[in-house]
Amino acid sequence: MAEIGTLVLLRHGQSTWNAENLFTGWVDVPLSQAGEVEARRGGELLAESGVLPDVVHTSLLRRAISTANIALDVADRHWIEVYRDWRLNERHYGALQGKNKKQTLEQFGEEQFMLWRRSYDVPPPPIEPGGEFSQDGDPRYAALGDELPRTECLKDVVARLLPYWDSAIVPDLRAGRTVLVAAHGNSLRALVKHLDGISDDAIAGLNIPTGIPLRYDLDTDLRPTNPGGTYLDPEAAKEAAAAVANQGR
Amino acid sequence: MAEIGTLVLLRHGQSTWNAENLFTGWVDVPLSQAGEVEARRGGELLAESGVLPDVVHTSLLRRAISTANIALDVADRHWIEVYRDWRLNERHYGALQGKNKKQTLEQFGEEQFMLWRRSYDVPPPPIEPGGEFSQDGDPRYAALGDELPRTECLKDVVARLLPYWDSAIVPDLRAGRTVLVAAHGNSLRALVKHLDGISDDAIAGLNIPTGIPLRYDLDTDLRPTNPGGTYLDPEAAKEAAAAVANQGR
Repeated sequence: MAEIGTLVLLRHGQSTWNAENLFTGWVDVPLSQAGEVEARRGGELLAESGVLPDVVHTSLLRRAISTANIALDVADRHWIEVYRDWRLNERHYGALQGKNKKQTLEQFGEEQFMLWRRSYDVPPPPIEPGGEFSQDGDPRYAALGDELPRTECLKDVVARLLPYWDSAIVPDLRAGRTVLVAAHGNSLRALVKHLDGISDDAIAGLNIPTGIPLRYDLDTDLRPTNPGGTYLDPEAAKEAAAAVANQGR
Repeated sequence: MAEIGTLVLLRHGQSTWNAENLFTGWVDVPLSQAGEVEARRGGELLAESGVLPDVVHTSLLRRAISTANIALDVADRHWIEVYRDWRLNERHYGALQGKNKKQTLEQFGEEQFMLWRRSYDVPPPPIEPGGEFSQDGDPRYAALGDELPRTECLKDVVARLLPYWDSAIVPDLRAGRTVLVAAHGNSLRALVKHLDGISDDAIAGLNIPTGIPLRYDLDTDLRPTNPGGTYLDPEAAKEAAAAVANQGR
């Protein structure tokens, strides 16, 4: 039985649209300067803790790709193998993409707003074909054809993520490699849900802090021997979790 | 017969050691700020001319990797497939790595100096095992074992580059793809020598400007239909060539 490698999850830091409080989804906005600082810190944490990726998997979105580029450069691992796939993309936010979160909350009310944000299986309304923030005609998704999402709930993200986990990431882990996955709040929640066996209801309460690498040690059945994973900066992760909890109040 | 794709060569811009006039070779120094500007200009040229890479091949060295990352981000092609290989690395400069070029010229005289810099088959003295600027113990080269170069002449670079050209780059071209190769002065000279059938003597006179994408259109035998290639900014390439010629006087 081959040794199982180490999995490291890294959620991208602040994007320009996070800073402006807009729903982003598949819109390909860059990191803000604060987000670049978070990515550098993520790289320092990898280097300091000696968790050195042999291979990186990213989404097709700039904010995850830049986060990986910056963090790996800082950790002196800029030269490792790279794979990218749309299945690691953020959840598609449908017709909400490009809309202000506060205005959307006011327009639709808190119940509907929270349903779209945190329910497991209620997607926002689909984006209009050819709309300003749709991905129609984007060459990176040309091969998807009718599979191109028009909106997604977290359940949809789990469904499209897992084939990539099984076919692309698991083989790297089974080869004993340290695998970095640089992705997004919801694609990483989908993965963590699968790894930790979190229920459809409980996943609503789980948030992954940005910019802090999250290490999973897996047994040969790919179950975490450290359930919930281990943040490379536990103090910062605690503070981030507290900040999110206070937001909810 | 499949359509043959487009080949685009991009030499990294100024590194911190270029700025300090040091022999660099395989020492993994970063781009200078001027080098980052060159990379952005390279990306603008790709976008403006509509030469949009489907896949990028880089060396394992930071200055080529960063150049590709920056240029592709500017050209909105940050999401394409990525491959990296040591066979695209700069020429290994042996015991000269880390040495000042002016001091080396004074110490060894112009004849010996030019022989090391421009002869086809005279390598500099080999680097000492475990020396400050050797790559012993560098994990990215661990798999090379005794194949790890200790010095190289251009002939050596041609010999280690061509297997990668044949096995990794040519298949992408035969698949009809636009292929970006982000690499170094001497690994790109080695490739151009092969493509254009330049003699061992004549290659000494060929310099590739930094930061200006060089497009090659290839026939089905992989011979250029535009011998010498086409710079995406011909004026800037002419100026750079003139500057190099004046340096020699």
